[in-house]
Amino acid sequence: MPAVDFNTEPSRYKHWRIEFDGDVANLVMDVDPAGGLSADYELKLNSYDLAVDIELADAVQRLRFEHPEVRVVVIKSGKDNVFCAGANIRMLGKATHGHKVNFCKFTNETRLAIEDACENSKQSYLAAVTGACAGGGYELALAADHIMLVDDRRSAVSLPETALLAVLPGTGGLTRVTDKRKVRRDLADVFCSVEEGVRGKKAVDWRLVDETVAKSRWDEAVKARAAEIAARSDRPKDAKGVKLTPLARNISGDLISYPHVKVEIERARGLATISVRGPAAAVPASIAAAHQLGDQFWPLAVARELENAVLHLRFNEPKIGLIVLRTEGEAKAVLDHDAFLAKHQNDWLMREIRHYLKRVLKRIDVTAKSFVALVEPGTCFAGTLAELLFAADRALMLIGQRDGDNRPPAAIMLGEANFGFYPMGNGLTRLATRFLGEPASVARAQKKIDASLEGKEAIELGLVTFAYEAFDWADAVRIMLEERISYSPDALTGMEANLRFAGPETMETKIFGRLTAWQNWIFQRPNSVGEEGALKRYGSGIQPNFDRERI
Amino acid sequence: MPAVDFNTEPSRYKHWRIEFDGDVANLVMDVDPAGGLSADYELKLNSYDLAVDIELADAVQRLRFEHPEVRVVVIKSGKDNVFCAGANIRMLGKATHGHKVNFCKFTNETRLAIEDACENSKQSYLAAVTGACAGGGYELALAADHIMLVDDRRSAVSLPETALLAVLPGTGGLTRVTDKRKVRRDLADVFCSVEEGVRGKKAVDWRLVDETVAKSRWDEAVKARAAEIAARSDRPKDAKGVKLTPLARNISGDLISYPHVKVEIERARGLATISVRGPAAAVPASIAAAHQLGDQFWPLAVARELENAVLHLRFNEPKIGLIVLRTEGEAKAVLDHDAFLAKHQNDWLMREIRHYLKRVLKRIDVTAKSFVALVEPGTCFAGTLAELLFAADRALMLIGQRDGDNRPPAAIMLGEANFGFYPMGNGLTRLATRFLGEPASVARAQKKIDASLEGKEAIELGLVTFAYEAFDWADAVRIMLEERISYSPDALTGMEANLRFAGPETMETKIFGRLTAWQNWIFQRPNSVGEEGALKRYGSGIQPNFDRERI
Repeated sequence: MPAVDFNTEPSRYKHWRIEFDGDVANLVMDVDPAGGLSADYELKLNSYDLAVDIELADAVQRLRFEHPEVRVVVIKSGKDNVFCAGANIRMLGKATHGHKVNFCKFTNETRLAIEDACENSKQSYLAAVTGACAGGGYELALAADHIMLVDDRRSAVSLPETALLAVLPGTGGLTRVTDKRKVRRDLADVFCSVEEGVRGKKAVDWRLVDETVAKSRWDEAVKARAAEIAARSDRPKDAKGVKLTPLARNISGDLISYPHVKVEIERARGLATISVRGPAAAVPASIAAAHQLGDQFWPLAVARELENAVLHLRFNEPKIGLIVLRTEGEAKAVLDHDAFLAKHQNDWLMREIRHYLKRVLKRIDVTAKSFVALVEPGTCFAGTLAELLFAADRALMLIGQRDGDNRPPAAIMLGEANFGFYPMGNGLTRLATRFLGEPASVARAQKKIDASLEGKEAIELGLVTFAYEAFDWADAVRIMLEERISYSPDALTGMEANLRFAGPETMETKIFGRLTAWQNWIFQRPNSVGEEGALKRYGSGIQPNFDRERI
Repeated sequence: MPAVDFNTEPSRYKHWRIEFDGDVANLVMDVDPAGGLSADYELKLNSYDLAVDIELADAVQRLRFEHPEVRVVVIKSGKDNVFCAGANIRMLGKATHGHKVNFCKFTNETRLAIEDACENSKQSYLAAVTGACAGGGYELALAADHIMLVDDRRSAVSLPETALLAVLPGTGGLTRVTDKRKVRRDLADVFCSVEEGVRGKKAVDWRLVDETVAKSRWDEAVKARAAEIAARSDRPKDAKGVKLTPLARNISGDLISYPHVKVEIERARGLATISVRGPAAAVPASIAAAHQLGDQFWPLAVARELENAVLHLRFNEPKIGLIVLRTEGEAKAVLDHDAFLAKHQNDWLMREIRHYLKRVLKRIDVTAKSFVALVEPGTCFAGTLAELLFAADRALMLIGQRDGDNRPPAAIMLGEANFGFYPMGNGLTRLATRFLGEPASVARAQKKIDASLEGKEAIELGLVTFAYEAFDWADAVRIMLEERISYSPDALTGMEANLRFAGPETMETKIFGRLTAWQNWIFQRPNSVGEEGALKRYGSGIQPNFDRERI
């Protein structure tokens, strides 16, 4: 399969179009059957593969940044009789285990981005369901704040995966049904077995959709509902959007460079180093100047590049299991930018940038690779970039300076960004999660905001895992990386998925922790992926042959 | 492998002994290397298999019922230099996937029973760790309320599974480290890579143990700590325990009978029917009379039999994937017994019985089989037994009576037992979980306590999934069962594991939902169980050969 590219823009979309109508945008799904990632399957009936979801993710992102005037996004189908048939089954049947898992993860992140827009940007999604809305199609609708279903005696929502494919509605489906829609568990159980789906009043009674509307009143009712939701939004009416221009990325062998992010791959070691550069310029003189910078404003630029780098490594470098995180630049410059974001937190664009950085950091939290942060002289793990330390599985710090290096000693700086800008999926900040057993340590760290914290103090405050004197540094880092590389990739994935999320669980952590883990298990079982399994035999006319053992 | 038998008693233990010392019991682990379930492996170094854990579960249970005077249980090792080496690796290497999963589940339940004793019976566990305490050995210690570690420069706690075996510390290990002990996530990550473990002050600093004590003061310090914990307990000083006599179980072909529970297996359909009989006698005249009945008191007797039946089906009937739940008897008699339990809730034995019923119902919640409850004339789904309806994936009810059957119409009765006696693992009652989206329905149901709720009313109250008139009943039930049986067992396991636990997550649900699911995934991966995987190659001197792809 060719490298997966996450860069796109509306003029290149094959599967979606956006129709603007004042403060409402209609996001129309009209999948090109021949436009999938691979020619091995056809994307019939608005079924989707990763190519479709990459465009959706791009659209969701651009609607927030480029269209501050949009208050409601109506997800519609561009096809007759079908809203969306879900993830393409041929694709699932042919995909490797790794691709299936990565595909589901990315798709889950896209759904959560939709919910993040509703919750945090007052850009609400309304699913206007006409026709069959099955499996991943209904999971897409579930991500919306409000689900309308036309009452035409045909249109229905369904989750037929268990019955038809021997897999789960795993793009958040089961979790959203029980925890977001709060469907009664036995009705959810029944719903998952009704292949033809549930429609009309029963769909409302079972809490599967919010309302049904007769076909004759449909267009008008959708418009009215969208207008009503739009009226509740606080998005600015006359603001100018910020264009997300193509990323300046250069891939040259094992080096991937962006203006602020660099990825160096050491293939033999299965390791990549991501280096993030702090701001080169001072903060803008005014909020207007920040808007003028648009996507070149450092926090936004770095978020885009870091996100792209992480996704690239996930999909295109599966054998790179260990990521070293570095930063370079002036800590003070990072904190200044954080302060600017905080000062202008009521500005719609600054709000978008913060939530975007939050989502990018969350992508690291759920990436199935080990992350190790290295704090050395010249690094700028401060404020927003210090979150990388707390997202990492381990952070190692050099105490003081190296011989012959006259840069200031390695230091960390905390800022207000570390105390609330970027909650994890569990709803807590990374520091609160880190210090679950010693909450006083959060307050203690907070008192050190803006202080330059060198190795010994950082250890004492619990901010890094280990600190080493310069003469021990190289060996300690080398041994630690070698050890990590020697472990089973699967055991690390499972271990990290558990250790990274202490404390409360939310719908989001349940999706990634519980539902995803079960789906990954099922995605390996012969009953779904074996030669006689349901995914392989789907559509062949031959019933799957199941091993009846319950495990 | 011969059928697994869960019935045992201290005189038959091969691996544990209990030494009583006033209000302290020493539970000494001294595993007989040749006493495992199979002759394929030797249980060296206090490593364990299911046989060892069955005895532990029995001991934990008997200490609560037979020894009201015991306030503290000290878990010790009977061997020099080793506390417990964890689950036996040869056993794990040879076991089927299904056995590994079932073994972990049962072991997790035993650990939770230890925590339940600490929390709800004031019978606290103290782990007195001397020697190596590795993997499942440390997971056992983690179940205790208090962990003491001797400071002899050798004794250490460790979780070496990831590094050595390419699997997880999955008997709650990772979850207890982050959520119970609240170990900082990066230290937990390091801890999971330190094969030799962590000892002394560092083990305390990292929150892995509660205290370390010099060898010279060890015995005295353990005694003193046990005495101090005992002083905080409210367990009665002079009460007489209730002997748990051998279960009267008769297995005859596909029929398993106990005095109050009957299991009928229909092997061709992959289905078993569990029928539970309500009380045959009136409630005892007094609390003294209830004590006199001992393990013949209906609530205790039925709990033991139902637990045994469920465990038997789990381990010995893996191809039986669907369980039909029935009851028979007088609803009123069940409610009378519930009321008796409630009235005497401060009596230690009544408290034990309630918590035991809670644990048995939880075993159903985490059993990887589908449960369907059938409410017909003559059944007594009332109070405690009505919990079976709410534990089931679906409940079907017959409306009214059948022609020629002059028993009263099928009815359900709710009692106070349904509103707080038996919280699920998520901390909510089954009704609160069921009505997560409509909390008013809980209050509405509560107003119907003691009312005889027939089919139409039960549907209206949301207590059952479907109700059918007598003429539709047989077909509806047959079609539903056939449909369920046709589904992939794995998809059902994953679906039920997600749908059964809406709402909040606790350490307990995280263990079964998140940690277990990841472990099950890993337990299938070639990197652990393949011919070149770590479990197969452990101890061979040959390094495992890992597929380096991160998923």
